[in-house]
Amino acid sequence: MENLVKYVWIVFCASIVALGFAFFFYRRMLKEDEGTPTMREIAAHVRKGAMAYLKQQYKVVTIVFVVLAVLFLIMSIFHLQNGVVWFAFLTGGFFSGLAGFLGMKTATYASARTANGARQSLNKGLQVAFRSGAVMGLTVVGLALLDVSAWFLILNGTGLLELVGEHATLTTITTTMLTFGMGASTQALFARVGGGIYTKAADVGADLVGKTEYNIPEDDPRNPATIADNVGDNVGDVAGMGADLYESYAGSILSTMALGAAAFATISAEMQMKSILAPMMIAAVGVILSVIGIFIVRTKEEASMTELLKALSRGTNTAAVLIAVATFGIMYVLFKDSADIVWWQVSLSVVVGLLAGVIIGKSTEYYTSQSFKPTQKVAESSQTGPATVIISGIGLGMISTVIPVLTIGVAIILAFLCANGFQIEFNAVNLSKGLYGIGIAAVGMLSTLGITLATDAYGPIADNAGGNAEMSGLDPEVRKRTDALDALGNTTAATGKGFAIGSAALTALALLASYVEEIKMALERIGTSVLDLGDGRMVDTANASLIDFMEYYNVSLMNPKVLVGVFIGSMMAFLFCGLTMNAVGRAAQKMVEEVRRQFQEIKGILTGEGTPDYARCVAISTKGAQHEMLLPSILAILAPIVTGLILGVAGVLGLLVGGLGAGFVLAIFMANAGGAWDNAKKFVEEGNFGGKGSDNHKATVVGDTVGDPFKDTSGPSLNILIKLMSMVSIVMAGLTVAIHLL
Amino acid sequence: MENLVKYVWIVFCASIVALGFAFFFYRRMLKEDEGTPTMREIAAHVRKGAMAYLKQQYKVVTIVFVVLAVLFLIMSIFHLQNGVVWFAFLTGGFFSGLAGFLGMKTATYASARTANGARQSLNKGLQVAFRSGAVMGLTVVGLALLDVSAWFLILNGTGLLELVGEHATLTTITTTMLTFGMGASTQALFARVGGGIYTKAADVGADLVGKTEYNIPEDDPRNPATIADNVGDNVGDVAGMGADLYESYAGSILSTMALGAAAFATISAEMQMKSILAPMMIAAVGVILSVIGIFIVRTKEEASMTELLKALSRGTNTAAVLIAVATFGIMYVLFKDSADIVWWQVSLSVVVGLLAGVIIGKSTEYYTSQSFKPTQKVAESSQTGPATVIISGIGLGMISTVIPVLTIGVAIILAFLCANGFQIEFNAVNLSKGLYGIGIAAVGMLSTLGITLATDAYGPIADNAGGNAEMSGLDPEVRKRTDALDALGNTTAATGKGFAIGSAALTALALLASYVEEIKMALERIGTSVLDLGDGRMVDTANASLIDFMEYYNVSLMNPKVLVGVFIGSMMAFLFCGLTMNAVGRAAQKMVEEVRRQFQEIKGILTGEGTPDYARCVAISTKGAQHEMLLPSILAILAPIVTGLILGVAGVLGLLVGGLGAGFVLAIFMANAGGAWDNAKKFVEEGNFGGKGSDNHKATVVGDTVGDPFKDTSGPSLNILIKLMSMVSIVMAGLTVAIHLL
Repeated sequence: MENLVKYVWIVFCASIVALGFAFFFYRRMLKEDEGTPTMREIAAHVRKGAMAYLKQQYKVVTIVFVVLAVLFLIMSIFHLQNGVVWFAFLTGGFFSGLAGFLGMKTATYASARTANGARQSLNKGLQVAFRSGAVMGLTVVGLALLDVSAWFLILNGTGLLELVGEHATLTTITTTMLTFGMGASTQALFARVGGGIYTKAADVGADLVGKTEYNIPEDDPRNPATIADNVGDNVGDVAGMGADLYESYAGSILSTMALGAAAFATISAEMQMKSILAPMMIAAVGVILSVIGIFIVRTKEEASMTELLKALSRGTNTAAVLIAVATFGIMYVLFKDSADIVWWQVSLSVVVGLLAGVIIGKSTEYYTSQSFKPTQKVAESSQTGPATVIISGIGLGMISTVIPVLTIGVAIILAFLCANGFQIEFNAVNLSKGLYGIGIAAVGMLSTLGITLATDAYGPIADNAGGNAEMSGLDPEVRKRTDALDALGNTTAATGKGFAIGSAALTALALLASYVEEIKMALERIGTSVLDLGDGRMVDTANASLIDFMEYYNVSLMNPKVLVGVFIGSMMAFLFCGLTMNAVGRAAQKMVEEVRRQFQEIKGILTGEGTPDYARCVAISTKGAQHEMLLPSILAILAPIVTGLILGVAGVLGLLVGGLGAGFVLAIFMANAGGAWDNAKKFVEEGNFGGKGSDNHKATVVGDTVGDPFKDTSGPSLNILIKLMSMVSIVMAGLTVAIHLL
Repeated sequence: MENLVKYVWIVFCASIVALGFAFFFYRRMLKEDEGTPTMREIAAHVRKGAMAYLKQQYKVVTIVFVVLAVLFLIMSIFHLQNGVVWFAFLTGGFFSGLAGFLGMKTATYASARTANGARQSLNKGLQVAFRSGAVMGLTVVGLALLDVSAWFLILNGTGLLELVGEHATLTTITTTMLTFGMGASTQALFARVGGGIYTKAADVGADLVGKTEYNIPEDDPRNPATIADNVGDNVGDVAGMGADLYESYAGSILSTMALGAAAFATISAEMQMKSILAPMMIAAVGVILSVIGIFIVRTKEEASMTELLKALSRGTNTAAVLIAVATFGIMYVLFKDSADIVWWQVSLSVVVGLLAGVIIGKSTEYYTSQSFKPTQKVAESSQTGPATVIISGIGLGMISTVIPVLTIGVAIILAFLCANGFQIEFNAVNLSKGLYGIGIAAVGMLSTLGITLATDAYGPIADNAGGNAEMSGLDPEVRKRTDALDALGNTTAATGKGFAIGSAALTALALLASYVEEIKMALERIGTSVLDLGDGRMVDTANASLIDFMEYYNVSLMNPKVLVGVFIGSMMAFLFCGLTMNAVGRAAQKMVEEVRRQFQEIKGILTGEGTPDYARCVAISTKGAQHEMLLPSILAILAPIVTGLILGVAGVLGLLVGGLGAGFVLAIFMANAGGAWDNAKKFVEEGNFGGKGSDNHKATVVGDTVGDPFKDTSGPSLNILIKLMSMVSIVMAGLTVAIHLL
C-alpha cells in the first residue's frame, strides 16, 4: 500500500508542474507590450469592471457557501454527515472560484496585448492569445489535481477522519472527497449563471439598440454598453467557463475514485488503491501531455488561417493521441498482475471516452459551422423572415441531439463492457466494474483539458482584443486579424464543447452510482446495519451491493416514486432554462432602456463628442446578474433536498435520471441551435443571401440574439445543473435516509 | 360472471346512444341554411380540399397499416403474438380514422351555417357551432366505446381466442385488446402530424406573404393560400384532434382494463371482471352525462360574451360534477362487497384524475391567456423587438411546465395510494392496485370527453365560419361575432388541452405497467415458464409479479441499458419535434414561394380582378404534408422496436420512461409558449403597446408564426408519440423477449 501512495505524490507534483507552467505563461504574457495609451486605458476599464463584478459575485456566493457549510456542520452533529465535509466543501468552492478568477485576470491583461500582437502579425496575435488561454487551462487542471491529491494525502495519512469519528477506509475517504465536488459545482453554477446573465444582458442590450436601432457597428466606442459587453465576455466566457470545467474535471476524477473504491471493496485494499490511482494518474499524465501540446502550437510568421487551424489542431490531437497511448502504459503498470481487471480492457474504456468526445465535437461542428449544410439552411430560411429563421434553428437544434445521444449511449455500453471484461450478465461484480469503466471514460474524455481549455479560453480573449482594437481606433486590418482569430476559436471551441457535454453525461452517471454508495455510508452512520430486501432476504448493509440497494429502495421503473421523480427531474431542466432565459430577457431590457436613454440624453454621443457613461451600463449588468442568478441556483440546490424529504431515495434517483435525460438533450439542443444562429448570421455577413444590412441579415440577427442566451447562459448552465443536483443528493444522502415522508 | 357481462351490454348501448345523438345533432345542423351562394361555394371549396386531403392521407396510412398487419400476422405464426392482434389493430385504426373523418365532414358542413347563424345573432352562431362540435365529441366517444365493448363481447363470448390457440382468460382478452390501441395511436399520429404540417404550412405561408409583405388581412379572398388555410383548420384542428382524442380515450380505458385484469388475476375472476367493468362503466355514464351537458348549453338570444362563456362552462362543469358523483355510485355497485378494493377509495382516484385535469387546464389558461400577466409580459417584450418576444415566450413556456408536472406528480401518488388503501409499503399487491388507480384516474379525467371535445372542436368551426364570412364579403359585424366565438373557443379549449395532456401522462404510465403484463404473456407464449431472478429465487412466470419482472430484467436505475434507454427516449421527443418543426418550415417555404409567384404573375390579383389559383396552394399543402409526415411517424414506430432488439426489455422501459419524462414536459412547453405568443399578438391587436400595424405588432406576429408549429404540430403530436411508443412496445413485446442483442 505504502509504495502506492507515492503515485499520489506524483499526481501532486504534476499539479505543481501545471501551475508552474501557468505562471510561466502568465509572466511571459505580461512582458508583452500593451499597446497605445488608449488601448491600455480601455483594457483597464474592462479589467476594473470585470474585477468589480467578480468581487460582487463572490460576496453573494460566500453567503450561500457559509449557509451550506453551517448546514453540513449541523448535519454532522446529528450523524447525518461526517465532520470533514463542511470544510472539504469550502475548499472545492474556493479552488473552483480561484481557477475562474485567475483565468479571468489573465484574460483581462491579455486582450490589449493580443490586439497589439495582431498589429504585428496574425501569428503573433495567436501566440499571445493562445498562451494566455493556456494559463487558464493549466490553472484549472493544476488546481483541481492539487485539491484532489492533497485531500487524498491528508485524509489517508493524517488521521483526520478518525478525529471526527470515522474509519479512514478508502471508501470513506473517496466518498468524503466527493463532497468537495459539491463545492466546485455550487461555485460553477453561480459563475456560469451569473456570468452568463451578465454577458448576454450586455451583449443583447448593446446589439438591440446599437446595431439594430442606430446602425453602429459592434464594439463601437459610442455605444454605452460596449465596455459592459467586453466585461461580459470575461466574466461569462472566461471566469464562468473556468469554474465550469474545473467542476467537470474534478467531478469526473472524484466520482471515478469513489466508484473504484466501491467496486473493489470486497476484493482487496490494494485493488481499491490502484483503481483510485488510475483516474488520478491519467489526469496527471494528461497535464504533462497538455503542456507539451501547448508548446507544439506554433507556426511560421506569415501563416494563413488554415495553417493556424492546423497548428491548433496539431496541439490538441497530439495530446489526445499521446494520452490514449499513455493510458495503456498506466493501466499496465497498475493492473498487469490483477485477476479482477484486465489492463488493456479498462484502457479501452478510456479510449472509448476520448473517441466519444471527438465524435460529439465533430457533430457539434457539423451542425453549427457555416461551412456545412444545416447552418446554411438556417441562413437560407432568412429569405422568409425572422420567424422561419427561428423555426429552422429550433428544428436544427432538436435534430442535432441525435448523434451526441447515440454516441453517448454506445459509449456508455462499451465503456461498461470493456471495464468488466465484456460480461453482459447483470450481477453486482460486473455492474460495479462496469460503472467504474463509465467513470474512467469520462476522465479519459477530459484528460487533455489543459490544452482543450486553452483553445476554448483563447476565443474570448481574441474577441476582447477585437473590441479593444475597435474602440482604440486601430487599423481595420488589426480588427480583421482578431476576427480571424475569433472565428478560429469558434471552430476549436466546438470540439471543446463536445468534450464538456459528453463528460457531463458520463460523470453524472458515475455520480448516480456514487450516490448509492453514499446512501450505504449514511445507513451505516445512522445504525441501520441490516437491510430487509422484502423478498425474505436479509443483507448486511456493509456487504450490500448496488443491486441490493436497488431492491431495498425499490428503484425500479414501476415505482411511482421513481416515475414522479423522473417527471420532476425533466421539469427542473426546463424550469431552470426558463428562469435563466427570462433573467437574460429582463436584464437585457434594463440595458436597452439605459442605452436608449443615454443616446437621447447625452449630447454629441453619436458624433463622438460626448462620452457615454460606460460605468452605469456595467453597474446595470452587475446588478441584474446578481439579482437574477439567485433563484435558479437556489432552486437547483433545493430540488433534490425537497424531493428527498418527500419521496425518499427512490424519488431522488428518479429526479437525477430525469434531470440527466432531459437536461443532457436540452443542453445539446440549446447549444447547437444558438451556435447555428450565430454562424448563420455570419454566413449572411460573408455576403450570402443579400449580405450585411439586408432584410435577410436583420432576420438572422434576430436568430443570433435569441441564440445568445441559448448557447451562453441556459445551455452551458444545464451541464452544471445536472451534476450539481447529483452532488447535492450525495451530500444530503444522510438527511434523505433519515427523514422522508413516503 | 354472466350477470356481470350484462354491464358490458350497457356500455355497448351507451355507445349507440352517443352515436345516435351525434347523428341527431348532425341532421339538425344540416337543416340550417348555408347562406348566400358565395358562402355555399366557398364552403364547397374548403370541403372538397379537406376531403381530397383526407383521401390522400388515408391512402398512405393504409399502406402503413397493411405492412404492420402483415408483420403481426407473421409474428403470430412464430408465436410472438396472438392471431387476433393483426385484425384488432386494423379496427382500432379504422375507427380512429372514422371518428376524425366524420368530425371533419360535420365541420366542413357547419362552417358556412355557423357564419349564417352569426348573421342572425351571436347565440345562434354559438348553437350551430357548438352542436356541430358535439357531433365530433359524441362520435369519438361513441365509436371508442363501441369498439371496446364489442371486442370485449366477441373475445369473451365467441371463442375466437381459442380458435387461434389462446386461453380466453380475462388477462388474455384485455392484453389482446390493448393492441387495437396501437391501431388508434398509429392512425392518430399520422392524422396529427400530417394535419398539423398541412395546417401550419398553409397558415404560416398565407401570413408571411399576405399579412407581412402585402398587408392584406387574414382570410382575404385575394390571398391564394386562404382556402388552403381554411382546409388546414379542418384537417389539422378537427380531423387530427378527433383521431388524437379517440386514441387517448380508448387508450386510457384499455390500459386500465388490462391493469385491472392483472391486479386481481390471483384473487378471483369476478374481481377481475369488476375491475375491467369499472373504467368502461365510468366512460359509459360519462357519455350520457355529456349528452345532458350538451343540452344544458343554451342561453338567451341577446347574450353577452360572459354569458356565453358561462353557458359553455355550465355544460362542462355540470357533466364533471355529475360524473364525480356517479363514480361513487358505480364503484359502490361493483365493489361494495369486496375485501380487496374499497369502493369509495378507488372513487377518490377518479376524482383525483378529474381535479388534476382541471388544475392543469387552469394553469394553461393562466399562462396563455392575455388576461393574465405572463402573456402580457410577452406582449410587453415586443417593445424591444422580435428577438425578445421569442426569448420571453420560450422562458414563459419553460416555466409554465412547473404546475402541470407537480400536479401530475401529486395526482400519480394520490391516485396510487387511494386505490390501494393508502398502503405506502411497496409490494406486489399494493403496486398492482395502485397502478390500477393511476389508470382509472386517467379514465376519470377523460370521462366527460363527449362534451369537453365539443367545446374544443367548435373553435375551428367558428374560425372557419369567420373565414367564410370574410371571403363572402359579409357584414363586418358577422366577422366580429365569429371572432368572439373563436376567442371563446380558445378559452374553453385551454381546459380541454389540460385534460388531453394530463391524461396522456397518466395513460402512458398505465401502459408502462401493461407492457410488463404483455412481457409476461410473451414469455409464456415462447415457453419460458420459470424465471430465475438471479438471487437464488425461481418464480413461475404465470405467478410472477410486476416486481419480480423488474428484478428478472434488472429494470433498475443502475442498469446502463435502462439509462441508455432513458437518453434515447428523451432524444426521441426532441428529434420528433425537430423533424416536425422543420417539416412545417419546409412546407411553408414552398407555400410562400407559390403565393409570391401568384401575386407577381396573376394580373389584377390584388385589386380583386384576377382570381387566385387556390387549388394549387391546396395541392402544395397536401403534397408537403404527405411527404413530410412519413419520416417522423415511422421513426416513432421503429424506435421502440430497434431499442428492443438491441437493449431488450430493460432498454425499452428506459426508452418509454425517458420519452415520457422529456416528452410530457416538452409538450407542455411547446403548447404554452405557442399559446402565449398567439395571444400576446392578440393583446397588442387589442390596442396595447402600439396596437395593430405598429412595429411591436410585427414583433408579436413573428412570435405567433413561430408558435404555430409549436402549439399545433409538434406539441400535440408529442402526446401521441409518448403513447404510440408504449403501444408499439406492447405489441412487439414478443419480438423483444425472443430476440435482443444485449
